[in-house]
Amino acid sequence: MHASQIVHAPAPSGAGAFASRPTARHLLGLEGLSRETLLAILDDAERDLARLSSDRSPTEELRLATVVIAMFEDSTRTRVSFQIAAKRLGATVSTFSSHGLSLSKGETLRDTLRIFEANGADVIVVRHSSPGAPAYLAEQVESAVVNAGDGMHEHPTQGLLDLMTLRQAWGGSFERRRIAIVGDVAHSRVARSAIFGLTTLGVRVTLAGPATLMPAEIERLDVTVAASVDEAMEGADAVMALRLQRERMEAGLLPTLSEYTRVWGIDAARVRRMKPDAVVLHPGPVNRGVELAPDVADGERSLILDQVANGVAVRCAVLRRSVGALAREAA
Amino acid sequence: MHASQIVHAPAPSGAGAFASRPTARHLLGLEGLSRETLLAILDDAERDLARLSSDRSPTEELRLATVVIAMFEDSTRTRVSFQIAAKRLGATVSTFSSHGLSLSKGETLRDTLRIFEANGADVIVVRHSSPGAPAYLAEQVESAVVNAGDGMHEHPTQGLLDLMTLRQAWGGSFERRRIAIVGDVAHSRVARSAIFGLTTLGVRVTLAGPATLMPAEIERLDVTVAASVDEAMEGADAVMALRLQRERMEAGLLPTLSEYTRVWGIDAARVRRMKPDAVVLHPGPVNRGVELAPDVADGERSLILDQVANGVAVRCAVLRRSVGALAREAA
Amino acid sequence: MHASQIVHAPAPSGAGAFASRPTARHLLGLEGLSRETLLAILDDAERDLARLSSDRSPTEELRLATVVIAMFEDSTRTRVSFQIAAKRLGATVSTFSSHGLSLSKGETLRDTLRIFEANGADVIVVRHSSPGAPAYLAEQVESAVVNAGDGMHEHPTQGLLDLMTLRQAWGGSFERRRIAIVGDVAHSRVARSAIFGLTTLGVRVTLAGPATLMPAEIERLDVTVAASVDEAMEGADAVMALRLQRERMEAGLLPTLSEYTRVWGIDAARVRRMKPDAVVLHPGPVNRGVELAPDVADGERSLILDQVANGVAVRCAVLRRSVGALAREAA
Repeated sequence: MHASQIVHAPAPSGAGAFASRPTARHLLGLEGLSRETLLAILDDAERDLARLSSDRSPTEELRLATVVIAMFEDSTRTRVSFQIAAKRLGATVSTFSSHGLSLSKGETLRDTLRIFEANGADVIVVRHSSPGAPAYLAEQVESAVVNAGDGMHEHPTQGLLDLMTLRQAWGGSFERRRIAIVGDVAHSRVARSAIFGLTTLGVRVTLAGPATLMPAEIERLDVTVAASVDEAMEGADAVMALRLQRERMEAGLLPTLSEYTRVWGIDAARVRRMKPDAVVLHPGPVNRGVELAPDVADGERSLILDQVANGVAVRCAVLRRSVGALAREAA
Repeated sequence: MHASQIVHAPAPSGAGAFASRPTARHLLGLEGLSRETLLAILDDAERDLARLSSDRSPTEELRLATVVIAMFEDSTRTRVSFQIAAKRLGATVSTFSSHGLSLSKGETLRDTLRIFEANGADVIVVRHSSPGAPAYLAEQVESAVVNAGDGMHEHPTQGLLDLMTLRQAWGGSFERRRIAIVGDVAHSRVARSAIFGLTTLGVRVTLAGPATLMPAEIERLDVTVAASVDEAMEGADAVMALRLQRERMEAGLLPTLSEYTRVWGIDAARVRRMKPDAVVLHPGPVNRGVELAPDVADGERSLILDQVANGVAVRCAVLRRSVGALAREAA
Repeated sequence: MHASQIVHAPAPSGAGAFASRPTARHLLGLEGLSRETLLAILDDAERDLARLSSDRSPTEELRLATVVIAMFEDSTRTRVSFQIAAKRLGATVSTFSSHGLSLSKGETLRDTLRIFEANGADVIVVRHSSPGAPAYLAEQVESAVVNAGDGMHEHPTQGLLDLMTLRQAWGGSFERRRIAIVGDVAHSRVARSAIFGLTTLGVRVTLAGPATLMPAEIERLDVTVAASVDEAMEGADAVMALRLQRERMEAGLLPTLSEYTRVWGIDAARVRRMKPDAVVLHPGPVNRGVELAPDVADGERSLILDQVANGVAVRCAVLRRSVGALAREAA
């Protein structure tokens, strides 16, 4: 999988320009991360999960680290998850939410990040509406940069928590598994990160969704496209439903909501097409009755809340990895 | 006192549906809490107050706990008070403020709380404009739920800090005491929590205020109603003035502000009708010159700032109680 | 330098009324602080900087202290800096941002601060749009008050970080140094704090800027005014460019932006008029291409990021000083 293989529908110019740099300090995307790196992060996250949920022994391992969580785009779930992860490791955490705030004063994004760096931030967690913003910023600061979602590009910690959730459901191995990813793949950073991670780990990925919402140059991705959601889910080991954005309808990319649900929505009948132990993922928040039927969202196959719990563990592992890399690079 | 006894003016349908469940883990309201439970929380809070204000010895007792403060309605005082209480006990604290934010994305309130639970929240402090929201949520999650104010229903930590403040002023006992509660009782969650707590502890409660702002089925409450503020305060041991919301006037429930103040406002002359050592409470923020004359709000009888200081202590006690109950239930 | 000597352009009535009180507990402004006090804070901040950036040994020295950061006016940089400083020292930190929020409910500013005090705040960091608000509040509460910027009055921690940055650049001494301060001095709390600190330490200050943006009674300040930016910078040891507010143009105090930049903007040619080792300061955020040419803002003479890093150290020193003074006064 190379950066040049990926071109997504409304492609930002020079998509390849923000491919993940192979620096352990940052986490800019799952594209380009090796199988070994992915598995090492997942193993680490499993240890965090065990500690967080069972014995709950405290840790002060990041007591010397300062983490700034910089949200240049609305976020509630991801912010809370990173905050809890960082605080659980004993780090000093400061949160910055700007919907144009300081930036509206004419300050460049780069200046703002350098301010955080100068304030002593070891790790800067960045969410931004522009694809590639974290990668660009990673070139500008010495701090480690963790991408918490950049436009339609990647959302790597979401991808990692999806991998973690699937590995748990699949008895610890990704071998000979197949997943259906259903919905608005073209605009989904969640889907992109998941596809990079899954294909690197050998999982077969089948996409399904309206043709208007499929990535433009799909043949370059290491995935297949099904003609229907039934075909995609037939015999699959998991399905990942993507959140439908209402803006897509306003943009004329979709007919009505009920039409979408009828053709692409996942209900219990469609779930039964998968293997008996197959599972259902969704990045949340769910539009109940649109992309997932309520009984599917809340059913026993649904791992939506496991995804959230794994999210804190994955973010612990990612923050530790960044701080560890900084320390090694400084030594 | 039973849930079915309480019906307040613009009653939500099925008010009884969100009566406090007798689970030690949650604090949903003071209704139904026993005298023993109330006194135990107050005793605990007194120890916290002593520790917070005098010797200031540190504590790490909630070091393993994660507290999420979820404000679905504006709050500044209550949020700061819970934050300081939780941090003072060493807990990991994450604050979530939504005025429709994530919820506007079509996410249900229940989903949001379950996200906090999946993120590892031991205690979720909830403020919400819908009466009964915390009680409903307590049924949906394993986390402990603490009500930080739900519409016109209850505000139990405020009620507890009122009890604590009165007990201090009254030399440690509630026996043979009488309090006047003045103003917009019908719409006041502060008044409701106070009434439940006070009557359980044997304090006699006299209400006074415009007839349009008295609870509809007042005869079912274990309180008496006075014809005037003078009558209510005559010989009382304390007066609690309620905050007047301007919306009441817009809704036509009140004449002018000056008329309200003339008839129901508490000035020095009215304070003198009470016993010589009687005290003045107000939940804040005070509309000076409306429900309280400035010299009363700032006078030596006023315990408004004691209420705030007691608020941090009470919230320490409540959080400790919830975490302790969780631990016992898990054991 | 006496309070009565300072009158600034759109002077609030009774400017002298909010001159710094000589109480070690508060930091209301740099006006009136002695040379010894200023140098003691800077020395302390240097130790903090060393600890923060090099050995990073942890500290729990303010573990018993509660710091409330109360921003009644937009702030991102200053808030993050104070948060990190307070958390780095182990304090309990709670942040309150109000753009009229609780205050719009009719609560007075004084009441709000007393709430923070009653919540146990040892130090209240206040930013407010009204000159003198922190000084007024310091009279009302027992908590220590640190001014984080009050209208056009002072921004003392910014002034201290400027002094710290200059002392580092100047080999540890302020003797026989001269600085040019360029731009909108009349409306700048940054300039005012810097002028008080610099002149107390014996630095000569030359102002330059449009006549409409010079302080009205400039002859009372211990500074000189140059006719042009070239004259001001000639042979100087440093230049501090002030941020230009667009409102000034709307108010008719300025012609066009390009005209401002041509006459008062600092480019590389103007930087070369200073001494060879002279440095460039700016409080940020920079309007690149307006008050500073981009190559100057990012050039090797620019200490803008050092200012930020010193800001965290200075705020550590200031918070420690306030808590220490409280402890001594209580003893």
